[in-house]
Amino acid sequence: MIKTDDEDNVIFIGNKAPMNYVVAVLTEFKKSDDVVVKARGRAISKAVETVEIVRKKFLSDVSVTDIKIGSENIIDDKTNKPMDIPTIELYMSSK
Amino acid sequence: MIKTDDEDNVIFIGNKAPMNYVVAVLTEFKKSDDVVVKARGRAISKAVETVEIVRKKFLSDVSVTDIKIGSENIIDDKTNKPMDIPTIELYMSSK
Repeated sequence: MIKTDDEDNVIFIGNKAPMNYVVAVLTEFKKSDDVVVKARGRAISKAVETVEIVRKKFLSDVSVTDIKIGSENIIDDKTNKPMDIPTIELYMSSK
Repeated sequence: MIKTDDEDNVIFIGNKAPMNYVVAVLTEFKKSDDVVVKARGRAISKAVETVEIVRKKFLSDVSVTDIKIGSENIIDDKTNKPMDIPTIELYMSSK
């Protein structure tokens, strides 16, 4: 299952193939006018890819209204030391 | 060498370690108030990481003024077929 936030309109990008997240975004747009795609670390590229596939191949009326980047401090699994990983939030709207 | 655009203030993210691009951005900010970081495909995550390292560790007065995403149509090396890859442009300013 693809993880969603407490706020139902947030899609978190993980390790699956991009098309899984494309379907999740399309499903979300049936319920909501606004969908947020979030990712961190290496999944950031896949988040951008997901949003682009949605816009180019499926929902041409959807626009990207805002893009935010940031950092999260996590404990690295291998070294057990804190490290910063980059994050992205892509805000999409069909309005 | 790290590739820059005709417009001198553009840094293209490639296959090197993020710190190489951090240094390139810092060097560019000595010459210019505005620097653009561009990437496509998997390098998009590294582009966001580069911008975050610059802001958090080196230049706290630099802000991200705009972020654009898009797609480029390229011929895939392996399959010889056209495919879309996602792109990102991160606009930074010290003003």
